[in-house]
Formats: sequence, structure tokens, C-alpha cells
Amino acid sequence: MTTNISTITAWFKELQSQITEALSHLDGKAIFHSDKWNREEGGGGDTRIIQNGNIFEKGGVNFSHVFGKLPEAMKSESRIADYFEAGGVSIVIHPYNPYVPIIHMNVRYFEMLDVEEGNYVDSWFGGGIDLSPAYPNEADTRFFHQSLKEVCDRHQERYYDEFKTWCDKYFWIAHRKQMRGVGGLFFDYLRPNPTESLDTIFSFVKEIAETFIPTYSEIVRRNQDRPFMERQKNWQLIRRGYYTEFNLVYDRGTHFGLKSGGRIESILMSLPPLAVWEYDKKFAKGSEEEKTLRFFQPIDWCK
Amino acid sequence: MTTNISTITAWFKELQSQITEALSHLDGKAIFHSDKWNREEGGGGDTRIIQNGNIFEKGGVNFSHVFGKLPEAMKSESRIADYFEAGGVSIVIHPYNPYVPIIHMNVRYFEMLDVEEGNYVDSWFGGGIDLSPAYPNEADTRFFHQSLKEVCDRHQERYYDEFKTWCDKYFWIAHRKQMRGVGGLFFDYLRPNPTESLDTIFSFVKEIAETFIPTYSEIVRRNQDRPFMERQKNWQLIRRGYYTEFNLVYDRGTHFGLKSGGRIESILMSLPPLAVWEYDKKFAKGSEEEKTLRFFQPIDWCK
Repeated sequence: MTTNISTITAWFKELQSQITEALSHLDGKAIFHSDKWNREEGGGGDTRIIQNGNIFEKGGVNFSHVFGKLPEAMKSESRIADYFEAGGVSIVIHPYNPYVPIIHMNVRYFEMLDVEEGNYVDSWFGGGIDLSPAYPNEADTRFFHQSLKEVCDRHQERYYDEFKTWCDKYFWIAHRKQMRGVGGLFFDYLRPNPTESLDTIFSFVKEIAETFIPTYSEIVRRNQDRPFMERQKNWQLIRRGYYTEFNLVYDRGTHFGLKSGGRIESILMSLPPLAVWEYDKKFAKGSEEEKTLRFFQPIDWCK
Repeated sequence: MTTNISTITAWFKELQSQITEALSHLDGKAIFHSDKWNREEGGGGDTRIIQNGNIFEKGGVNFSHVFGKLPEAMKSESRIADYFEAGGVSIVIHPYNPYVPIIHMNVRYFEMLDVEEGNYVDSWFGGGIDLSPAYPNEADTRFFHQSLKEVCDRHQERYYDEFKTWCDKYFWIAHRKQMRGVGGLFFDYLRPNPTESLDTIFSFVKEIAETFIPTYSEIVRRNQDRPFMERQKNWQLIRRGYYTEFNLVYDRGTHFGLKSGGRIESILMSLPPLAVWEYDKKFAKGSEEEKTLRFFQPIDWCK
């Protein structure tokens, strides 16, 4: 079957179903509620939300498929296109236990068309996946990166290094001089070219997305029963504050969505259920919390 | 005595002392802790923080007096200036009781110089004060605006309308189509001109700042003992989430501070101690919360 926007969005929809099913099975208590929405200018989406679960305090798995006149904010991307069609799945999960990491994944496909001439102008895949533990540990971090590297290495030698570095730079909280988590992959503008067909790129994106369930389930299982105290919860809420700072101050996707009239509830589903800002909170040198800080810097986890 | 940057910053310092004293007296339990800091490139400040009080859950009253080479980000303001000196007081108070409003005030003075030529290039005052109740009521809102209007009217007829409108526009959360609170005043670039001397403008800024203690104390006293339940607390935490969105997504002062290498703890002291984001939280038509929404639109409160 040919890869085109219909087969791609159909697969995105299927990915959403598989991931929500796997996560609610893992949670064992809460299920996802589906909130279908229409976009006035064309298309719509299905935002699925889980809240107050055994494991997941708040999480969203959002599918969207939108099309219409190219927004002004994107006109600079192409002088001739006037129409776009795009689809994607976007996920952010905030677990309750401070030892279970936040995870984020996004996969998307964008197509630009020149309607008057009936021409295809451009198209590309983008995406990313990154892990934000309040208490990172080396085993989980290596496991996460290794599983992504294995997929990358099956496709293009350059992929892991390039997309891992891009991720380290993208999720950088400049004012805190640290990443929001332990990184992962970030990629954009993956276009068909003489050596890679749209089909080949789509296979790569699919395989990355398919690591989500096995990899995150394993990390959840490893940590979900670890006991914690108020201190650990507090540190998690502080790290969630940093996560919020990243999303609201730096994330281009959030800014683009809010400024281009996107559906705000679907965009802001990424924000934590609860977050704390204490003035100049410091943890003692050598404390469990202080030791986490080295993890939030660019590190080669697959060496 | 002539008004110049020394007399202005001395007055800012005095304002900080008066306000911290009044607020800790009002709180009756917590006191302000002073955190003095130096700016590597010149100057420094004194960030005073109150936490876990009877009334105030978290608050900051920050004084700063900084100077040095004009930052790149401000070069566009003037082609000839290469040096600046600035002082100001910035306040954000987050009360515990959801019926007591958040208040913010900022007063600042900025001077640009051409060091090589030894010339004064430009100088201006800026500032603002705005109130963000989770549960606004008409009496407090009118009282707040009226007290600001009285000061404005003693100075320039145009001031209240102009600065009130500016405030409504400035503290606008575009993606939520509402203000972060019930407004107040916002002004900037108040420069000496043929009809107003620096001294006259300084008197205006002083009188605005001097409304802070009597006006806010009165609003606190009116509401501090009102009983509340989990529902009211939850709504307050949701409104604090909106407050955070404004500060991190739109506030030019926050962005400028974070990007120009300002002291992040002093900048982010404005963020709430605790905030909540629930997916698409809605309150029933006619509920106490739904009724608050009309207050967060531009309204003439002094009619």
C-alpha cells in the first residue's frame, strides 16, 4: 500500500488506540476519556485524557488531523503553498509516584499543497520522545536511550547522534542551565530525498513510536511500587514546575499552538496536574536530589 | 532636593522596607527573609520573601539597583546610549485564602547614558499595579480602581483611562480570552516633557506606590476570615495556573529578565507556591466560579 496522508493518519489513529489501551491496562484503575473536537477551519481531533489513576495522576494522548488554508505563521515555510494537511499524535504522561518519570512523545506529518495549481509542494515528518524523571537513575536512562538507538541504527547511522543531540538542545531550560529531563530524540523536516522515500521515513517514525509501549511500561514497572515520602513528592512538584517553565517559555509547539488559535485544552494537557514553586529551593550537597542534577545535562548514555 | 537616580533608588529602598513591614504586621506570623545579591556586571538587589504565613502563602518584595553596559537586547531603544542605570521595586503576593486576591505592583526608573561623551541620553519611569482575585467582587474591585483613579486624577486627567486600558491589554491571557485578574494600572516610558518635570512624574509614581499599603490592607482585612472549602481552594489553584501561564507565556518583563541573564530566583518569585492544571475544567452555569468570569474582561469600574 502506498504511503500517503490517509494511510499515515489512519496509522496515527491506531497508534493512539494502542497506547491508551496499554496505559490504562498498566494503570489498572483509571481509563481514558475521549474528547472529540472539530476545528472550524477544517479537521479536528480526539483528545484522550486519563486522570487520578493508580499510577497516572494526569495524562493525555492527543490525535489530530487538520487541514485548510495555510496559517499566516507558516507562510514563511513556503512561498507557493496555500493549503496544508497535517496529522499527529502527542502524548504527555504525569505519574503520581515521584520515582516514575514523566514521558512525552510526539509524531507528526505535515503536507503543503498549492491548491490552485493542484500541486504537492512539500511534506515532512517530525517528532520526538523524551523522559523526565524527578529521580533519574543510570539503568533506566541507559535502557531508554538504548532502545531508541537500536531503532535509529536500523535506519540511518547518523540518526541517533543527530536526533539525540537535537533533543538535548531542544528541551534545554536556558535560564536554569539544565534539560527538563534526561533527553531522548527530537527530529523535524524528515523529507523524502534521493536515498530515503516517504515510505522509508514513515517506517522509521513508526518504529520509534512503537518503542513507546514496551519501553515506558518497563520503566513504570521498575519504579511504580517504590515507596516515597513527602520529601520526594515535593521534589517531583518542583521538577514539574521546571517542566511547566520549559513548556510555557521555550516550547515552540506550545507557542505556535497558542498563537495560531489551536485548541488550548489539547495544547495545555501537557501541563502537570500540580506544581510547586518555592523560592530558591536548595538541597544539600550530596543529597539524593542534588545528585540528580548531573543527569539533566547532555550525556552520551549509549557509550 | 533634586530628583535624580540616587534620590529615586533611595526612595525605592524605603518603599520596600515600608511594604515588607506592613505586610508582615498584617500577616501576624511570618516575616520577610532578606536575600541580598550582587549582579556581576554592576549593582545588585535585595529580594525579600515571605512564606507560609497566616495570610500570605508566598510573596516577594524585590528591590534592585543595577547599572553597567547596556544589554544587547536594549540597544534598539537607543542608538547612542551604551550605559544604563536602573532601579525598581517589584512585588507579587500569593495569599492562602482563596477569597484574598493576589496583588502585583512594580515601579521602576531607567536611565540611559552615553559614557564616552558623558551625556545623559534618556530616562523614564514605568510601573503597574494589578489585582488578581480568584473570587472577585464588585465592592473590592471598585474600591481598588477608585483609589488608583484618585491618584491619577490629581496628576493628569488622561492618566487613569490611559493606564487602566494599557493594564487591561497588558495582562491579557490571549489564549484564554480573559485578563489574569481585574486589572489596575500599567504605564511605561513616562519621560520628562515640556509640561511634566522628572520631579512631577516621580511624585505620581510615589503616590501610586503609596496606595499599596492602605488599599491592599483593606482588601485583605475584608476577606481574610472568610471560610472556604476544598472547592474554593481548587478554583484558586486553577486561577494560579492561569497566572503562571500569563507570566511565562506573555509577560515581557519575565522574558526580558530570563533572556538577559537576570537573577532567575528574583524573577520567578512571581510564580505561585502551588498551582493546578485540570483538563478542560468547567464549572456549571450560574455557579460561583462561572460568575467570576465576567470580571476578567475590560470593565469601567469607576463609572
